[in-house]
Amino acid sequence: MAETQATQTRQEQLQLLNNALDSGHLIPVRNLLEELRSADIAHLLESTPPRVRNVIWQLLDKEREGDVLQHLNDEIRQSFIEQMQPQELANALADLDTDDVVDILGDLSQNISNQVLRLLDEQNRAQIEHALSYPEDSAGGLMNIDTIMIRPRVSVEVVLRYLRIRGNMPPNTDHLYVVDSRDVLIGSVPISSILTCDPDTPITQIVDKETFTIPVEMPETEVAQIFERHDLVSAPVLDENGRLLGRITIDDVVDVIREEADHSLMSMAGLDELEDTFGKVAATAKKRAIWLGINLLTVILAALVIGLFEKTIAQVTLLAVLLPIVPSMGGIAGTQTLTLVIRGMSLGHIGEGNKGYLLKKELAVSIINGVLWALVIAALVYGYSYYKDSGINHLHLAITIGGAMLFNLVTGVVSGAVLPLFLKKINIDPAIAGGVVLTTVTDVAGFFALLGLATLFFG
Amino acid sequence: MAETQATQTRQEQLQLLNNALDSGHLIPVRNLLEELRSADIAHLLESTPPRVRNVIWQLLDKEREGDVLQHLNDEIRQSFIEQMQPQELANALADLDTDDVVDILGDLSQNISNQVLRLLDEQNRAQIEHALSYPEDSAGGLMNIDTIMIRPRVSVEVVLRYLRIRGNMPPNTDHLYVVDSRDVLIGSVPISSILTCDPDTPITQIVDKETFTIPVEMPETEVAQIFERHDLVSAPVLDENGRLLGRITIDDVVDVIREEADHSLMSMAGLDELEDTFGKVAATAKKRAIWLGINLLTVILAALVIGLFEKTIAQVTLLAVLLPIVPSMGGIAGTQTLTLVIRGMSLGHIGEGNKGYLLKKELAVSIINGVLWALVIAALVYGYSYYKDSGINHLHLAITIGGAMLFNLVTGVVSGAVLPLFLKKINIDPAIAGGVVLTTVTDVAGFFALLGLATLFFG
Repeated sequence: MAETQATQTRQEQLQLLNNALDSGHLIPVRNLLEELRSADIAHLLESTPPRVRNVIWQLLDKEREGDVLQHLNDEIRQSFIEQMQPQELANALADLDTDDVVDILGDLSQNISNQVLRLLDEQNRAQIEHALSYPEDSAGGLMNIDTIMIRPRVSVEVVLRYLRIRGNMPPNTDHLYVVDSRDVLIGSVPISSILTCDPDTPITQIVDKETFTIPVEMPETEVAQIFERHDLVSAPVLDENGRLLGRITIDDVVDVIREEADHSLMSMAGLDELEDTFGKVAATAKKRAIWLGINLLTVILAALVIGLFEKTIAQVTLLAVLLPIVPSMGGIAGTQTLTLVIRGMSLGHIGEGNKGYLLKKELAVSIINGVLWALVIAALVYGYSYYKDSGINHLHLAITIGGAMLFNLVTGVVSGAVLPLFLKKINIDPAIAGGVVLTTVTDVAGFFALLGLATLFFG
Repeated sequence: MAETQATQTRQEQLQLLNNALDSGHLIPVRNLLEELRSADIAHLLESTPPRVRNVIWQLLDKEREGDVLQHLNDEIRQSFIEQMQPQELANALADLDTDDVVDILGDLSQNISNQVLRLLDEQNRAQIEHALSYPEDSAGGLMNIDTIMIRPRVSVEVVLRYLRIRGNMPPNTDHLYVVDSRDVLIGSVPISSILTCDPDTPITQIVDKETFTIPVEMPETEVAQIFERHDLVSAPVLDENGRLLGRITIDDVVDVIREEADHSLMSMAGLDELEDTFGKVAATAKKRAIWLGINLLTVILAALVIGLFEKTIAQVTLLAVLLPIVPSMGGIAGTQTLTLVIRGMSLGHIGEGNKGYLLKKELAVSIINGVLWALVIAALVYGYSYYKDSGINHLHLAITIGGAMLFNLVTGVVSGAVLPLFLKKINIDPAIAGGVVLTTVTDVAGFFALLGLATLFFG
C-alpha cells in the first residue's frame, strides 16, 4: 500500500538521486530503482537531466529495460535505444505487448527495425510484422491481438472451464468476443455476465450484438473520441469483412488523448508535443531556432508595412507610440477564436453543418468587442493627445486608432475562425501553422489600418 | 454494429437536423434521437447553436434527460438545468451514479441543490450528501460508492455464488476489494483471477496486497497521473484509517485528463476550458471583453514606454519601423519556455529537485538563440539602413537592435521559466496569468532595450 506514498515523494527521490550521484554512491540509487515500478522509473527518467538519466539507465536491471522503455516518451526512449545493440533490444522487447513493440519499432530506422525483428522468435515476429503493416496512427497501430474468442453455441459453464484451463487473461479484458467459424464477430459478452449468470446460461442469450466496433483503418483520434464518449474499456477491431483482428484497450487510448491534447498546446507555441523538458541544450536550441526564424520573417513583413508609412510617422511621431496597441488587440482576439475552433475541431464539434453559425456568432462577438474597445481606445488617445498638447487634430487621431481597432478586431476574429478550417482543408495542421499565420495577418492588417488612416488624415 | 456508422455521419445528422428544423418537420428529428445513444445526443447538443439545442432538448424523451445531462459539458448542462423544475431534475438524476449526481448538483446554487436533494429517496440522499462533503476536485468528489467488497476467509467458489446472487456488477469493475470487519482494505482481487482460478482457491491466496490506493483527499490531477502512469481501470479510495470508501473508475479519470489538458490550452488564450463553442453572442462577447480589457492595459503600458522615447524616435524615424521586431521575438521565445514549463508542471515532471537544471538549460538555449538572431537582425538592419541611405550611423543602429534582441530573448526565456513556478507558489494559475504577464515583460523590456540603446547612440 506504499504506492501513493512513492508518488508523493517524487521530489524527494530526485533529491536522493542528485545527492547520491554527486557523492558517487550508487547503491542507494540501485535500491531505489529496485523498489520502484517500471512506470515510476520511466517518470523519474523523464524528470531528470540527460547526465543523471544515463546513470540511472546504466544501473537498471537489464530485465526491466523493456518494461521501462514502453512507459517512456518517444524522444527519450529513442535516446536509449540508440545506445542498445539489436540483441539487447530484442531481449528487452520479447515480453512486451504487440502494440507496444510496434510502437517502439515504428520509431526506428527500417534497417535497425529489421535487425531486431530477425532476433525475435518466429511467432512474435509474424504478429509484429503484421501489426507494423498498419499506419501507426490508425486503429491497426493501436490494437493488440490478445483477444479471448469464444463460440456462440456454448454455455457459461464451458467458458468458465476454458478460462480456468487458460489460467490467465490479457490485461484490461472486460469482454469476451463471440465469433463464428470464419472469425467474423457476432458480438461480445461482458465478463461480468460470465461471473453473474447461471452456469447453464447459453452464450447466445447473453451476447451483446450492439457492441461498439472499430474498423482497422479508423484514425486513432476518432478511436479516442468513441472511447471517451462511450466510456469504453476495450473495443474489438475488425477488418472490412467484419473479422476480428484484435482489440484496443483504454490504457493506449489514454495515451492518444494525452498526446493529442499536448499536441494542440505545444504546437501553438511551436514545440513538438514530445519535446523533452530536460533535453540537451544543443538539440533544444536548434529546434527552437527554426520557430524563431519563421517568426522573424513574419515580423519583418510587419515592419516593412510600417516602413511604407515612414513619412507619416516622421510628421506625427505620436503614431509610433500607438503602434503596438492595434496589432496586439487583434492578435489576442484572433487567438481566442483560433483556439476555440482548434479545440472544437479536435473534439469533433465543428463541421460543414455548423461552421456557418459559428462564423456568424464569432463575427457578431467581434463587432461588439470591436466597437467597445474602439470607443475606449479612441477616448484614451484623445485625452492623451490633448494632455500632451501634441499639436495635431485630437479628434482625427482618435478616429484613426478607433477605426483601426474595430477593423483589426474583426479581421483577427474572422481569420481565427476561417484559418483553421482552411488550413485543415489543404492538409496543414492548424495547431502548428494557425498561430503564426494569424498573428502575421493581424500585425500586417493592424499596421496598415492604423497608418493608412493616419496618412489619410495627416499625410 | 451500426455504432461507428453513427459517429462517422455526425455532420449528416446535423444537416438532417437543420433541414428538419428549417422546414418545421420534427418527426425525423424525434426518430433520430430515438436511435442515438445518450452520449451521442450530448455530443450533438454540444455541436449545435442554442436555438436548435433547445428544440432537440424539448423533443427528448423525459426518461433520457438524466442520462444525456451526465454526458454534457458543464456550461451547456447548466443552461438546461436552469429550465427544469426541481422535481423534474430529481427524476432525471434518480438513476445516475453518485459521482455524476454530485457533479451536477455541485454546479447548482445551494438553494436549488437542497430542493433537489429533498426530492431524492432517502438512501440516495444520504449517499449524495456524504459525497458532496468532499471537494469536487478531490478523489472524494470523483469516487463512486458501488464497490464489491468480499471477506478474506472465503474461497473463489463462495465469491462466484455471491456474484450470481447479486446478479450484476457495477460498470468498470475489474477488481473486488477484500476488507476486514471494520472495512479496512486488505487488498484487491482481479476479477480475471476469479474467472481463471480453481473454485477451491482461498481468496487469501490470490489477494493482491500491493494494489494502488487513493487517499480520499488526493487532488484529482494526481489521481489522473496515477491512473495514466500505471494503466489502471479502477482504484479503491481510502479514508485516513485505511477504510474503503469507494472507488474511482477510468471513465471519470479520462474526463479529468481531458479537462486538465483543455484547461492549459484554453487558459493560455484567456478562455474558460468549458467555453461553449456555439454559445450565445452576448455571453461570449462579455467573457472575451474582460480578457481584451486586461490585454489593453498591458499594451498601453508598453506604449507608454515608447512614449518615454518619443524624442529619439522623432530624430530617427527608422526606429519606429523596427519597433515590433524585438518584443515579438522575445514573446515567442518566452512563450515556448512558458508552455514547456506549464506542461512539465502538469505532468509532475518539474519540482525543487530539477528546476535549477531546467533554468540553466533554458538560459543556455536562450543565449545561443539570442546571439544567433541578434547577428542575423543586426546584419539585416545594417543592410536596410545602408540601402535606404538613412543618414544615421548604420553600425550603431545594427548594434542597437542586435543588443536589444539578445537582451530580450534571454529576458523572455528566463521569465518563461521562472514565472510559472513563481505564480504557482503564490497560488495563481500559471496557465491563465502566465502568458499575459510574460508578454507584458517582453514588450516592456524589448521597447526599453531598443529605444534605450538608441538614445545612448543617437539621443
